[in-house]
Amino acid sequence: MMPRGKTATVMTTRLGDRSAVTPDRLVVEEPLEVRLDDHVVATTMRTPGHDYELAVGFCHTDGLLAGAPVRTVRYCATGSASETAYNVVTVSTGGVAPTPEARLQRTTSSCGICGTASIDNLMSRLEPLTSPPVPAELGALVRASSEARARQELFEETGSIHAAAVFDPGTGAVSLVREDIGRHNAVDKVVGRLLLDGALPATGLGLFVSGRASFEMVQKAWAAGFGLVAAVSGPSALAVETARVAGITLVGFLRGSSANVYAPEPAVMRRVAG
Amino acid sequence: MMPRGKTATVMTTRLGDRSAVTPDRLVVEEPLEVRLDDHVVATTMRTPGHDYELAVGFCHTDGLLAGAPVRTVRYCATGSASETAYNVVTVSTGGVAPTPEARLQRTTSSCGICGTASIDNLMSRLEPLTSPPVPAELGALVRASSEARARQELFEETGSIHAAAVFDPGTGAVSLVREDIGRHNAVDKVVGRLLLDGALPATGLGLFVSGRASFEMVQKAWAAGFGLVAAVSGPSALAVETARVAGITLVGFLRGSSANVYAPEPAVMRRVAG
Repeated sequence: MMPRGKTATVMTTRLGDRSAVTPDRLVVEEPLEVRLDDHVVATTMRTPGHDYELAVGFCHTDGLLAGAPVRTVRYCATGSASETAYNVVTVSTGGVAPTPEARLQRTTSSCGICGTASIDNLMSRLEPLTSPPVPAELGALVRASSEARARQELFEETGSIHAAAVFDPGTGAVSLVREDIGRHNAVDKVVGRLLLDGALPATGLGLFVSGRASFEMVQKAWAAGFGLVAAVSGPSALAVETARVAGITLVGFLRGSSANVYAPEPAVMRRVAG
Repeated sequence: MMPRGKTATVMTTRLGDRSAVTPDRLVVEEPLEVRLDDHVVATTMRTPGHDYELAVGFCHTDGLLAGAPVRTVRYCATGSASETAYNVVTVSTGGVAPTPEARLQRTTSSCGICGTASIDNLMSRLEPLTSPPVPAELGALVRASSEARARQELFEETGSIHAAAVFDPGTGAVSLVREDIGRHNAVDKVVGRLLLDGALPATGLGLFVSGRASFEMVQKAWAAGFGLVAAVSGPSALAVETARVAGITLVGFLRGSSANVYAPEPAVMRRVAG
């Protein structure tokens, strides 16, 4: 096994105008098993670091806590191998959280929540936000994007990692940044931090994500109560639909000094057939 | 619900030098439930299209077929709602495939296979390739990347979708391209096509992926027998380790006219501590 840590150095052969064998710094990816009380609820490939936040955030955005308070979070203490003990985190609610249902099916491809084939079922799990709509201010969005990027330590090192950040949609000031090889993990780490700080729901706050805005990113933001989601890349059609139902302001293609606002739906305009 | 299809048009407010309300073409994302014989084995958020390939490819790369022949692949015929019938695909082996194990835990964050916390267990599921190592030829890699991008119809339309492609590592000629909002789905679609064509294992062939090379991408390539994996973005440390064990040539940061070769490990060089 390679040394533990968030990054690791490996030798690589660079091909190009000047080919050479050089060391290269890469993002570490290891499995994290998340347990809720006595149940294994997920195994995710993640970048080590902020594992407690990731575990708590996942349990929250996946709806597993159902409002139960988090009493303790700890690494596995029973394993004899200290190496792998740090790849298991147990979130304890003292048995207050409902027992997760055993299921045969697995979710795949970046999808932590869709253990059902019914979009309607997915959609009905959450109520639309009751807080006032959060306006998309271009200046604040550009500042948030720039600030989040500047605070991405691992991206600076490796050139290849995702980030999620919490920002003030009015000023663009960034208050929290988390990185992970998985886009969803980065968001769960942010949500977990807010939960552990007693700062949920994230009413009126913005969530910045470094990649695309897929359905699940919007769903996680919704579960945490964010009023606005801003993504560097584009949203899926379902993400737009979900954000419009949720009452979340959805911004995509936030690049340079421009951005697209997909939700709420622009007023006075008709929808164009697909 | 929005109209079916691979893309959908929604109204968006563009913020920038010239703000305007305009239609924008987005990638469609919908759940696909995959059934193997009588068992639901996965639900994945995917871009509709090549669903049979996705279902078959997933069953193969996840090790669920265990060598069983695919007899039929079909959409769900029992549902009364024709709309959702296209979100369920059944792969039939006539009961020859082993019964998938029920499990409580779910896999998350782009991780279709890691239903275990043990990397060693993950690694031991597959044998190293026995075919000769595939050399990384920069000219061929650059051509493959350029050709794959040129054949990405949905990227052209939406600016935001992943792709996987099969290419000849000697010439760079691309023989197959598949797109999906999920990186893993794109790879599964490619693998499924090859399986349905009786073209597995993909000995001596290259797999191009538009994003990062995470552990699971390498694992899927391994399951399909690809001799080389080339990614536009960087690999994780675990992906490098896995490729070296598997005997897969791993190329990352394939951009412009340069690339990094991470596996096999460069000869005569010592590994630098992380």
